[in-house]
Amino acid sequence: MLNNLFTKLEGYYDEMVSIRRYLHQHPELSFQEYNTARFIQDYYEKLNIEVKGEVGGNGVVAKVYGKKPGKTVALRADFDALPIQDEKDVPYKSLVPGVMHACGHDGHTATLLILAKTLNELRDELEGNYVFIHQHAEEYAPGGAASMIEAGCLEGVDVIFGTHLWASEQTGTIQFRTGPMMAAADRFEIEIQGKGGHGAQPHKTRDAIVTASQLVVNLQQIVSRKVSPVNAAVVTVASFIAENAFNVIADKAKLTGTVRTFNEEVRQFIEEEMQRIIHGTCYASDSSYQFDYFRGYPPVVNHEKETGILIRCAQFVPEVKNIVETEPEMGGEDFAYYLEKVPGTFFFTGAKPIRKEDGYPHHHPKFDIDEKAMLIAAKTLGSVALNVQGE
Amino acid sequence: MLNNLFTKLEGYYDEMVSIRRYLHQHPELSFQEYNTARFIQDYYEKLNIEVKGEVGGNGVVAKVYGKKPGKTVALRADFDALPIQDEKDVPYKSLVPGVMHACGHDGHTATLLILAKTLNELRDELEGNYVFIHQHAEEYAPGGAASMIEAGCLEGVDVIFGTHLWASEQTGTIQFRTGPMMAAADRFEIEIQGKGGHGAQPHKTRDAIVTASQLVVNLQQIVSRKVSPVNAAVVTVASFIAENAFNVIADKAKLTGTVRTFNEEVRQFIEEEMQRIIHGTCYASDSSYQFDYFRGYPPVVNHEKETGILIRCAQFVPEVKNIVETEPEMGGEDFAYYLEKVPGTFFFTGAKPIRKEDGYPHHHPKFDIDEKAMLIAAKTLGSVALNVQGE
Amino acid sequence: MLNNLFTKLEGYYDEMVSIRRYLHQHPELSFQEYNTARFIQDYYEKLNIEVKGEVGGNGVVAKVYGKKPGKTVALRADFDALPIQDEKDVPYKSLVPGVMHACGHDGHTATLLILAKTLNELRDELEGNYVFIHQHAEEYAPGGAASMIEAGCLEGVDVIFGTHLWASEQTGTIQFRTGPMMAAADRFEIEIQGKGGHGAQPHKTRDAIVTASQLVVNLQQIVSRKVSPVNAAVVTVASFIAENAFNVIADKAKLTGTVRTFNEEVRQFIEEEMQRIIHGTCYASDSSYQFDYFRGYPPVVNHEKETGILIRCAQFVPEVKNIVETEPEMGGEDFAYYLEKVPGTFFFTGAKPIRKEDGYPHHHPKFDIDEKAMLIAAKTLGSVALNVQGE
Amino acid sequence: MLNNLFTKLEGYYDEMVSIRRYLHQHPELSFQEYNTARFIQDYYEKLNIEVKGEVGGNGVVAKVYGKKPGKTVALRADFDALPIQDEKDVPYKSLVPGVMHACGHDGHTATLLILAKTLNELRDELEGNYVFIHQHAEEYAPGGAASMIEAGCLEGVDVIFGTHLWASEQTGTIQFRTGPMMAAADRFEIEIQGKGGHGAQPHKTRDAIVTASQLVVNLQQIVSRKVSPVNAAVVTVASFIAENAFNVIADKAKLTGTVRTFNEEVRQFIEEEMQRIIHGTCYASDSSYQFDYFRGYPPVVNHEKETGILIRCAQFVPEVKNIVETEPEMGGEDFAYYLEKVPGTFFFTGAKPIRKEDGYPHHHPKFDIDEKAMLIAAKTLGSVALNVQGE
Repeated sequence: MLNNLFTKLEGYYDEMVSIRRYLHQHPELSFQEYNTARFIQDYYEKLNIEVKGEVGGNGVVAKVYGKKPGKTVALRADFDALPIQDEKDVPYKSLVPGVMHACGHDGHTATLLILAKTLNELRDELEGNYVFIHQHAEEYAPGGAASMIEAGCLEGVDVIFGTHLWASEQTGTIQFRTGPMMAAADRFEIEIQGKGGHGAQPHKTRDAIVTASQLVVNLQQIVSRKVSPVNAAVVTVASFIAENAFNVIADKAKLTGTVRTFNEEVRQFIEEEMQRIIHGTCYASDSSYQFDYFRGYPPVVNHEKETGILIRCAQFVPEVKNIVETEPEMGGEDFAYYLEKVPGTFFFTGAKPIRKEDGYPHHHPKFDIDEKAMLIAAKTLGSVALNVQGE
Repeated sequence: MLNNLFTKLEGYYDEMVSIRRYLHQHPELSFQEYNTARFIQDYYEKLNIEVKGEVGGNGVVAKVYGKKPGKTVALRADFDALPIQDEKDVPYKSLVPGVMHACGHDGHTATLLILAKTLNELRDELEGNYVFIHQHAEEYAPGGAASMIEAGCLEGVDVIFGTHLWASEQTGTIQFRTGPMMAAADRFEIEIQGKGGHGAQPHKTRDAIVTASQLVVNLQQIVSRKVSPVNAAVVTVASFIAENAFNVIADKAKLTGTVRTFNEEVRQFIEEEMQRIIHGTCYASDSSYQFDYFRGYPPVVNHEKETGILIRCAQFVPEVKNIVETEPEMGGEDFAYYLEKVPGTFFFTGAKPIRKEDGYPHHHPKFDIDEKAMLIAAKTLGSVALNVQGE
Repeated sequence: MLNNLFTKLEGYYDEMVSIRRYLHQHPELSFQEYNTARFIQDYYEKLNIEVKGEVGGNGVVAKVYGKKPGKTVALRADFDALPIQDEKDVPYKSLVPGVMHACGHDGHTATLLILAKTLNELRDELEGNYVFIHQHAEEYAPGGAASMIEAGCLEGVDVIFGTHLWASEQTGTIQFRTGPMMAAADRFEIEIQGKGGHGAQPHKTRDAIVTASQLVVNLQQIVSRKVSPVNAAVVTVASFIAENAFNVIADKAKLTGTVRTFNEEVRQFIEEEMQRIIHGTCYASDSSYQFDYFRGYPPVVNHEKETGILIRCAQFVPEVKNIVETEPEMGGEDFAYYLEKVPGTFFFTGAKPIRKEDGYPHHHPKFDIDEKAMLIAAKTLGSVALNVQGE
Repeated sequence: MLNNLFTKLEGYYDEMVSIRRYLHQHPELSFQEYNTARFIQDYYEKLNIEVKGEVGGNGVVAKVYGKKPGKTVALRADFDALPIQDEKDVPYKSLVPGVMHACGHDGHTATLLILAKTLNELRDELEGNYVFIHQHAEEYAPGGAASMIEAGCLEGVDVIFGTHLWASEQTGTIQFRTGPMMAAADRFEIEIQGKGGHGAQPHKTRDAIVTASQLVVNLQQIVSRKVSPVNAAVVTVASFIAENAFNVIADKAKLTGTVRTFNEEVRQFIEEEMQRIIHGTCYASDSSYQFDYFRGYPPVVNHEKETGILIRCAQFVPEVKNIVETEPEMGGEDFAYYLEKVPGTFFFTGAKPIRKEDGYPHHHPKFDIDEKAMLIAAKTLGSVALNVQGE
């Protein structure tokens, strides 16, 4: 049946490309993907596949029921775009000024729609049921995953898989990882309140720039001394703003930044250590502060068994030349929420454009993917989805 | 003759107030004081006193020649205003939106004009000659003093005196100081150029915020360890700007600030130390930098002998109740340039308004002076000017 | 044959214990293990097994030749002790004051001797050849491994295995890891040379304590910002010495410490960054420095294939209940050198004493092992050694 | 009478030198000056001058009563020596190994004894009374001044003067200063208690070296930002001790140092700021600390009127060529205690040896004075003592 699936997918490749290009031309920002959601729902309705819209927001969930008993397998694709101006010179360039599919979610959607159509055609032979989760708002916290889960998209689901088209890896490569694969990505804001004054009279002030600078230096010790060397973690102060005339002493300094971690314990610990260091540093300079810590997505932690299935099943895909472990990525992804509820794995499907000049990173105004990678993604997800039944 | 001078000054007190109030209503910004200069020049011309305008800019210089031989004594008053909206509720409030005599230069001018008029009337008895330097642009570097000197305003001058109406001291107080009295006030700009990147990938960047924070901390050592404890000095980083999204690492940080010192050696030394510390700190983080150091006015360094004369002569003024040494002021004043050329002294004339609610600091939107202080300033300058002849 | 091997090993268990206890009572320090080497050599000679002493120092190498063709498999055990006073209360307590087998090398030796004896008895059935590397001086850099390799102990060897009895893990556990498993452990010394003076005159000095403190703070950024978050690394300043009377300013400060890394690239990078940061920090304070970096053992980097074989073969050992991946250990081990020359893997054999009160860490004066673990180690090494032939 | 005094002093110059040399050969450490005290007391007794020993320790107080009414004037000389080995090559070199008059107190004593003898001879003409305070233990806190005052040495005293022979200034120079002249010299000890551990496991420790380094850096801000720029102050960390093996993380670090200030308010403020900064810095790293602050002598604050008298009277001394204001000295002196009780002034009498090679600083093993300076000191003190009567 796998070969049958592969052949069908190949047959629909042109449609897959055309869907992707249509979406690429009509991108919508996170939480505003009304037309894209409508497009997806229409597609399923025309095929008489069971589908439900407005799941936890703009989410769309479709279902295909196999004739034979088996597990319920969820496959997920996200479909929101980014506030970036498309600067590519291609016929399918974004038609919306300042909005662009610069992360490949258009490709994810096309991949999943075609895979769903194909599996639906094979439903008489299928074991188990298939849930196609089309998720809105992956790019912008709090994201769509949590609310779709809350709205029930994982009900009855036994296992879940998802992939990201990955433009920094060659087409033909599948990157997997057991355990933590993508980081928890949190945000913080710190406002130091000292006491301003004349630049020539430091003794009448509490210099917020000196305190905040001290704080930036002190925060380095969290990663260098407090977190175990074998736990990857990042504490970045991204922004430092204390704008004043040259002959003034700053009363206030505002720091914002991000924390990246791979497990809840370290994440919690870093927030506490930040609190401790901010408090101590401000105490030392008799300054007050406001510290806000906003949790982004949790880390993507892949399950061992399902990652093993992926590794095995990816070998059945003829176009897959290379199955390699990836280093943990410090970026975040709200696929994390699904994996907190059901077993599964998330992986990268190499999608680097062939022409060298097209090799732009994700979120770049000239970002593009190798569309052939969509077929590989569909075949790999399909292979996994069918074979997980036997496990 | 001193009593005669005092009596005459008292007789002109009302005119002094009316001149001051007129100027207060018609303030002009530094380097734009065309009408004020014209007003001053007209005043002298009507009195048939020798006067010259456009001296080194908008400067005005008048001269009174005594009948007896003696020294040539210069007296200086500045006449520019500030870009501040007058918020006082008085009949003589500024008529120019956003411009205000918030530092007392209107009073300086009125004081000097009346003193000149009086000395002119006494010229038959006077020893020596008197030069009245009405200086534009004290508030804004490079100031008017340097260009007026270059234009010759000190030619033939043996000694110079000047005063500042000082709203933080009670009327009746004269504050003097031998040696350094007001600081050199310099400005600096430092731009750190690191390498930006994603907030989760510090190892691919050179974090400009960490480097600049380190630099702010390191710069503290100039005052704490490098400059002699008995030399007053300030190094203030007034502004720290590195504005970025929360998940980015800063490629650039811009610091601006001020350095205050009281002698040229320390001033030069601090600039060199800053250069050294910036270079070392940036080297350590493999970052580059741009360091610009802009010299403001030099320190006001009063001469010992002339300060002694001031102390002695101020005692002759009945309204002077209190002659005290002042701490060095960290603020700057371009009277400094005159004292680099000829001996003299600069002093503060207490001018605190009597009503408590009027006690606003210099450069405050509600700043005002006790006008009686102008009479004291005129008498003290007059006493010094006459008595310096015998020294 | 594996069952045969296991049965034989069980039969020799008492002898294994008695060898271990004899060695425990007669420990010798690194590079001084003359009697231990003699003991090992004698043991082989009595069994008529080919043996060679004084290999690269006190090293001993024995060989057993199988009758059937196959790979040459090396197995290694170290045999030096530590300068620690044995404080255990057991009959086999160390007889040498201040010297103790506080790391389990006595057990390693007993394990390997019995395994060699057993394999020798099975030699008619064996494929390939077996090299038993008894290494001196693991505890003290530069260690014995490098010189034994130089003396030829790896000649003809195709693959190598080694284990460490690991008292912090339960008996029955085998801990493996692919790739970096134990850290490179380097040492550094930094001497800051400023200029001393009177404690009240900082401006006449270059305060070495301030510079060195700044340096300690700056060094934190190597781990926090310069090394990739997914690369484990440690930079520790262990000692800071600048001893002076209370009213003096320090002319000199001496820092010593250690660097731990898991790959050569990071190791090299950290040394360079230290150089850069020391140079920049000293430049900023006009101080000079001496920086010495001493390389200890390289990281132990296990080979993937051989680690896979270990994982598989350990399952054949009935006493092994638990085969788990270990986190990288930041400690060092000169087994690293063998793995730079031939493929292989190093693993931990759980050896935690059963009585709770015996659970002391390695290098503790009351350290002991669960002797049953020796049998497990022998069986696991034996299983791997036989089964690697088929791979 | 002043001329008479001067002539008599000149006549006793040889005796003055011989006393000084005798004392130079027989130095005694602070609080152990039994023989020196005895020597002084004997001297007075032989002259039938009223004298009392054991005043507040080894102190000696003599009194001369003038025939005419007037003020009671105290003059003070200290007489303890230092724990330094005399390395000069002179006939009057110290005979006591490891003990030396390396600060000129021998000269102070000789000066005062001869001045007392002379004034005693002139007592019939003298107005007022004269108290000669020979103070022990100036070099070592808590010093002798406080206990001599407690024992009554200032009872009835109206005014006090003292001088220090000053080897860094030319003979013929008198250095005065109104207000703060010598610093309060305090000592502190800080012990940081973190948590030690293995150098490769920072996350299991609280690194005391990093915390203490951070603290040293933070303490710089007291002088750079917290104390007014016009208030001289020094905070020096003189000693930093955290000695460990290279692969260990420090559990403890000990800092000692000194604080120098010129007024009580700043002194108190710095102690409080240190407390604040230590607390905040240790809080930030979850470490504990012990902070001890030991007050040394208060600042020497000269009174304005008496300093004026000194300036005037020093001009009457023919050998005085130069009367100059000195910068504040950051060193301490327990003459401070007398000035807290009665008005007076302390000044420096230039005593630089003529031969260039003899110009060693105070407390140097080759320190010496120009003995001619003793005569100048005696004349200046005498001139002040006689003339203060008329004020």
